Amino acid sequence: MVCLDSALLRDLLRGGLTIRGVEHAAAGHVADSLVETSLRGVDSHGVNLYPHYCRAVEGGRINAKPDIRISRTAASVATVDADHAFGHHAGAVAIDAAVGMALETGIGAVSVANSSHFGAAAYFALRAARAGYLGMAFCNADALVKVYNGRSSFFGTNPICFCAPLSGEEPFCLDMATSLAAWNKVKNARTVGSAIPHGWAFDERGLGVTDPHQARSLAPLGGYKGFDLGMMVDILCALLANGPMSKDIPPMFDAPLSTRRRISHFFVALDISKFVPLDVFTNRLREMATRVRATPAMEGADDVVMVAGDPEKRCYAVRMVEGIPMADERFAELLEVLPGVAAAQVSG
Amino acid sequence: MVCLDSALLRDLLRGGLTIRGVEHAAAGHVADSLVETSLRGVDSHGVNLYPHYCRAVEGGRINAKPDIRISRTAASVATVDADHAFGHHAGAVAIDAAVGMALETGIGAVSVANSSHFGAAAYFALRAARAGYLGMAFCNADALVKVYNGRSSFFGTNPICFCAPLSGEEPFCLDMATSLAAWNKVKNARTVGSAIPHGWAFDERGLGVTDPHQARSLAPLGGYKGFDLGMMVDILCALLANGPMSKDIPPMFDAPLSTRRRISHFFVALDISKFVPLDVFTNRLREMATRVRATPAMEGADDVVMVAGDPEKRCYAVRMVEGIPMADERFAELLEVLPGVAAAQVSG
Repeated sequence: MVCLDSALLRDLLRGGLTIRGVEHAAAGHVADSLVETSLRGVDSHGVNLYPHYCRAVEGGRINAKPDIRISRTAASVATVDADHAFGHHAGAVAIDAAVGMALETGIGAVSVANSSHFGAAAYFALRAARAGYLGMAFCNADALVKVYNGRSSFFGTNPICFCAPLSGEEPFCLDMATSLAAWNKVKNARTVGSAIPHGWAFDERGLGVTDPHQARSLAPLGGYKGFDLGMMVDILCALLANGPMSKDIPPMFDAPLSTRRRISHFFVALDISKFVPLDVFTNRLREMATRVRATPAMEGADDVVMVAGDPEKRCYAVRMVEGIPMADERFAELLEVLPGVAAAQVSG
Repeated sequence: MVCLDSALLRDLLRGGLTIRGVEHAAAGHVADSLVETSLRGVDSHGVNLYPHYCRAVEGGRINAKPDIRISRTAASVATVDADHAFGHHAGAVAIDAAVGMALETGIGAVSVANSSHFGAAAYFALRAARAGYLGMAFCNADALVKVYNGRSSFFGTNPICFCAPLSGEEPFCLDMATSLAAWNKVKNARTVGSAIPHGWAFDERGLGVTDPHQARSLAPLGGYKGFDLGMMVDILCALLANGPMSKDIPPMFDAPLSTRRRISHFFVALDISKFVPLDVFTNRLREMATRVRATPAMEGADDVVMVAGDPEKRCYAVRMVEGIPMADERFAELLEVLPGVAAAQVSG
């Protein structure tokens, strides 16, 4: 295990993309997103993905020099053709456009077609929330969540993200997959050879399994409701962007790295101050969070009472001081794609 | 058990409100919503609530002649002060305003303050979807869902509703509480004297119970994610409208009928045609639904594979022919508030 300094790491990640021909702004968004996401403790969507992204640029899946086209089709909506850019970059362009329209008209919505994996949805919604807006981000993904009552999957883990500014601290941040558990946890169980809890995953016949090697699909969050939320996300993403549905998106790791995935995103920004003075809103949200956090804990609680984003804030504070921890084999993989960087330069 | 003709019932419900001084448009929205909701099989939010609503008008909780004020604060957003109107009416006014703004600018968002129970959220989002828009409706409610890891409740069952037009059939319609099970099911179990499944509800210490009489709070949908979704709904409703948070809303049935509840709503309408031609969207959504429905069923499935809104469409087709079924005691209660109406007039 090594611990990496976040500021130094950000520069190195940006540089590693630049030498692969990725344009300056895109390299910055990817590096910022990965480091912020790792600092927040969401290791499945942070720096660990960097080597994969480098290979995806080299393979042609991700376009290093995309011609991103934005069409503002009405005062409050725009469509983006991402031209297979980094999703992190296309998404940042899109949420910034949504914020710009919201400033004028109160709300802005932007659909993104022909994109790629965008990392953590929170990166985009937090951009809006830090500027005083409600931010929302949605994304589709390859089929992985089992159809309710069916044998196989149709929708991806299709995340829903909602952020809102909170007085005196980082925004409220809900960033959730519409599956019960993450596929990453199934993969981790395979690696360490442990069983997975009953109810997380299903085999090829759609029957529940605890052996992670037999898992072919994931349980939707809370039964049919989570399944329907996943379909809602695909409607907002694939259908508004006229891109492929989850079922038709090639898998992230098992498809050739030359295959473009044509992922779709959807973003919304809402100008709070058009509804209520911003300080009234942020103070009342702080009051709401404070009151929820003050709820007496139940017997057998697995942690203190929190609101969405609290675990990530706790982790961020620790990792800003101690650095971003990384398993040795992941660190070796990272150094492989950062030629000329010595281990001692980044690990504490 | 009686079966009621929906067209006749709609007229009677409207008339019963009119004689209580409710203005014409509001009486129409309430009657339409209740009958449509019962036809769709959502009996907890349909005609069964009518006697309660009549008493709420008589008690002064619901304002029969409200002065509803809409302020369009920007091109795409408006705020509504409902002046304690029927939520069904305030909501219809609000979603229609959202659709009007979406037609101009691509998307419209409307926040509603000082409202009352609005019945089924689907009534509003379906209005938008039938007109070719994506429709969304949110509402807060009195505290009933247990705080994750806490002992007691803070947020209500705060519903999320999302509807989208579907070629050749009624819209896709997701209308879900952010609790795992409905409080109504706990109340039904009390009435019939049965146990409730483990995991649905908690006692006053926040411990799981199967005795419905000990239930004080409900489980959020899928653990912490459902709890956070309920908070998101309260942010969209209470905080944008500057109204009371779930925890501060008086209960629907146990508070005096003179007490105004000051419920908040939030609505969004999005003009699909600003993103993609409407027929392309509705045909692709039909294709998506058809492919999901064609997923082979798993062993032990509790029903055929469906998408959101399918059970309600099935029920609607049956009840349009056979009428709306109502338990004898509920029917007696209904006749009590419809003076001059003989049982034989409405029951088949």
